[in-house]
Amino acid sequence: MSEPKMNGAESLVHSLLSSGVEVCFTNPGTSEMHFVAALDHIPGMRSVLALQEGVATGAADGYFRMAGKPASTLLHLGPGLANGVSNLHNAKKAGSGVVNIVGEHASSHIALDAPLTADIEGIALPVSHWVRTSTSAAAVGKDAAEAVQAAMVAPGQIATLILPSDTAWDDGGVPHEALDRAPPAPFAEDLLTQAAQALDGPESLLLLGGNALGESNLELAGRIAAQTGCGLLSEWANARLERGAGRVAIGRVPYPIDIALEVLKPYKRIVLLGARAPIGFFAYPGKPAILTRDGAEILPLAEAGTDLTSALNALCDATNARLTPPAHIAAPEVPERQQGPINLDTLAATIARTIPEDAIIVDESVTTGRGFSPLTKGAARHTWLNNCGGSIGYGLPVAIGAAIACPDRKVMALIGDGSAMYTVQALWSMARENLDVTILIFANRSYKILRGELSNVGVQNPGPRAIDMLSLDRPDLQWVDMANSMGVEACRVSECEALELAIETGLATSSPYLIQVDL
Amino acid sequence: MSEPKMNGAESLVHSLLSSGVEVCFTNPGTSEMHFVAALDHIPGMRSVLALQEGVATGAADGYFRMAGKPASTLLHLGPGLANGVSNLHNAKKAGSGVVNIVGEHASSHIALDAPLTADIEGIALPVSHWVRTSTSAAAVGKDAAEAVQAAMVAPGQIATLILPSDTAWDDGGVPHEALDRAPPAPFAEDLLTQAAQALDGPESLLLLGGNALGESNLELAGRIAAQTGCGLLSEWANARLERGAGRVAIGRVPYPIDIALEVLKPYKRIVLLGARAPIGFFAYPGKPAILTRDGAEILPLAEAGTDLTSALNALCDATNARLTPPAHIAAPEVPERQQGPINLDTLAATIARTIPEDAIIVDESVTTGRGFSPLTKGAARHTWLNNCGGSIGYGLPVAIGAAIACPDRKVMALIGDGSAMYTVQALWSMARENLDVTILIFANRSYKILRGELSNVGVQNPGPRAIDMLSLDRPDLQWVDMANSMGVEACRVSECEALELAIETGLATSSPYLIQVDL
Repeated sequence: MSEPKMNGAESLVHSLLSSGVEVCFTNPGTSEMHFVAALDHIPGMRSVLALQEGVATGAADGYFRMAGKPASTLLHLGPGLANGVSNLHNAKKAGSGVVNIVGEHASSHIALDAPLTADIEGIALPVSHWVRTSTSAAAVGKDAAEAVQAAMVAPGQIATLILPSDTAWDDGGVPHEALDRAPPAPFAEDLLTQAAQALDGPESLLLLGGNALGESNLELAGRIAAQTGCGLLSEWANARLERGAGRVAIGRVPYPIDIALEVLKPYKRIVLLGARAPIGFFAYPGKPAILTRDGAEILPLAEAGTDLTSALNALCDATNARLTPPAHIAAPEVPERQQGPINLDTLAATIARTIPEDAIIVDESVTTGRGFSPLTKGAARHTWLNNCGGSIGYGLPVAIGAAIACPDRKVMALIGDGSAMYTVQALWSMARENLDVTILIFANRSYKILRGELSNVGVQNPGPRAIDMLSLDRPDLQWVDMANSMGVEACRVSECEALELAIETGLATSSPYLIQVDL
Repeated sequence: MSEPKMNGAESLVHSLLSSGVEVCFTNPGTSEMHFVAALDHIPGMRSVLALQEGVATGAADGYFRMAGKPASTLLHLGPGLANGVSNLHNAKKAGSGVVNIVGEHASSHIALDAPLTADIEGIALPVSHWVRTSTSAAAVGKDAAEAVQAAMVAPGQIATLILPSDTAWDDGGVPHEALDRAPPAPFAEDLLTQAAQALDGPESLLLLGGNALGESNLELAGRIAAQTGCGLLSEWANARLERGAGRVAIGRVPYPIDIALEVLKPYKRIVLLGARAPIGFFAYPGKPAILTRDGAEILPLAEAGTDLTSALNALCDATNARLTPPAHIAAPEVPERQQGPINLDTLAATIARTIPEDAIIVDESVTTGRGFSPLTKGAARHTWLNNCGGSIGYGLPVAIGAAIACPDRKVMALIGDGSAMYTVQALWSMARENLDVTILIFANRSYKILRGELSNVGVQNPGPRAIDMLSLDRPDLQWVDMANSMGVEACRVSECEALELAIETGLATSSPYLIQVDL
């Protein structure tokens, strides 16, 4: 009996499914119509429509962080991919695996330079670890399996597969089984003894990143800290950090450069485990870019993408910390109920009070959220996601992906108003998919971080036009209207009591709910 | 007396101003703070804040089309540029000149691979004709002048100047005067006689594009058509077309491939003047990509970027048409007042009735607008702008740029709901700048064009999941709320009488006004 005929698009969907890709964040166009048709009649792939491609790629980032495996995106030629590039940049910096499927003109059509013709590979390369253009329907299945394999290289990579439309519509598609996942690279075992010796008292630091910030790995780090007296920190931005009462609490290297320099000043010996040596987010005139003290010894025991769990276990043994009770276990701590106007302190305390057990917190609060970390460390156990690439507009999309990966967990998205506007279309997808996301929009009506940066870079006394270019208050954004326009329920609060009630209301429903928090 | 000290950022602003760049569409970040400061204290540059970079680049496209000279954009590193790439793609295909200023980390910081570090040149190249990274504060002024010069190469080019932040903050900036504008390349004079002979009766076609679609050039084309009996058409998408009563009316090569083939079938000889030979927007299985008949003689008399006005004048003389009254002059024609539900015909008629004299129409109506052209050709004189690059989300931003370039003209933006969502943040900038734009959002609650494309590419009987991926009706977008959320007044109509009243209301104010047109 001969196999039934299958076109390239159908082989793509079958191959993605075989490799464990179950979700497609999509904004398709004409060149992707055969994939749309294939998604229609092949069961197993959840298709989530986005109204702008940055939503799709950001959602794939959030999905990977929580599911530990890649989603696919379906994007329309070069410009559709381009709209997704900034959140692919963020995903790349977070070590998230994403499989982008990008439609392309039929091979014969490319030379004609039609309006939508663009250098798709050129657009993909700056944000992709792996880029391929399929050459025939027969190649698509294997290409898809290899794309997923590339996306799963630790910690996670961006794979972009470009499919000329004839490779989608031609018969001869061959589904391909999943390819083996490459094991993570080994950590630097030759540095182990040196690293264990370096961790010796309060002048030494164990700096963690990546999946070293998982619950059990943090516990190992806590044992090492207890045994050696070393400090524990994570990078400023972490793809995923497990936190809350009963877990080992870990501070972050601060964003503001002067504070970061101060925090890192005591450390003469630093062991890196999934983290990179601390540098400034930006350069500032007359200030150092390297944040560690002069002459600090830096030992890169385990780079991102290596086997961090083995590295932590080995370091735990090498420091004889295996049986030492971990230091820095966060005690349960619920702040008092807050009253009166919302300010950064009462806001942080109210969030700490309301974080539900096992919540996922997507944090794009920028300036507003700098005080969240200490006040929430004893809250109910939760997962905290940061923006690792610095391109704002990551938060709402990542919340979509997290909610789809973990339908049984509550998602809280803490988003600055400026940040939210870059990918505000995400609200519609949340409503459409009825996602369990409670969104706090911090309405400070400015790019407040830039007010500080003006003086950081040496611009004192900015004039009215400069201030205006950093202000979002002319007109004020009306977030309740914005949410309603896309089918999301919303309210607006300016007092702590109302804020707490609003958060409880949002968490009580399984639908998206937006709260404009006036600051 | 020594010159006062000037940093690189200040030399940039002075040099742009000297080269005639008077508007900056901006979404700045830390690496651009010195430019913000320079814009603050150096008068002459209008800064227009956008909440997403696609708004900024699209606005620059619209500005060039109407002002005939480039605006600048100010974008935040690689990801900020990336968000603007799709509308730069559209601008590039439209032949619009744009000067992108993109901040970059200080030279010393790039090697540290900070979170926002990206391959900015790599992101710029696919959509730029000219890319440069300044190497010192002293170089910035000259680089800026050369960027403007590059942007002004006919018909208009994308120039991207990347400025490491130390080149902005270091002293030693040297303002540079404007550089000479390169004249357009000569047209193919050697083809002139052949072209004049080819235009002979109804089997011949003069196909126009670029500034051949200006009022006086169209009149020349009308004379040639009257004298030779040739057909006149423009490309499907035109950067700028002058239309309305008293002007030479010109049809467009249709978008739907079967209709395009039919329209072009009669033509055995085609003279190209600022246009390219007609090809399909996409390839479709079993259908030709070249839309002209087999064996048609195609004479590229004047390519885009050549001197189209001289070419038309020469062709006019070579066909002895100089004194022939032009054919196809549109007679004034105002359709009757429409009544009852809005459909595509009554909508087109109502728009034709309400277009004000000297209006600028920004058309991103996609499927809804296919019938607008014939019904509006006898309307009041107006300028019509199309999307030349096919990346939707061009319309609202282009309307911003057009309104800023032409503050004394009314702008009407005709936008599909799906298209509007890609760059919906544009509404806020319209409110902030109090721009005279009346926006019609055609709410068909679907990517309707893709429903047709599904069957064009051979997918018959799409199933529910495919339909769902092309539908925007779950939830319905509430455009009045959306507009209000960003400070734009709005209403919603479903009957012709209300539509006409709403358009008149919008045109009567000098502020932005949005109309949700239910279809």
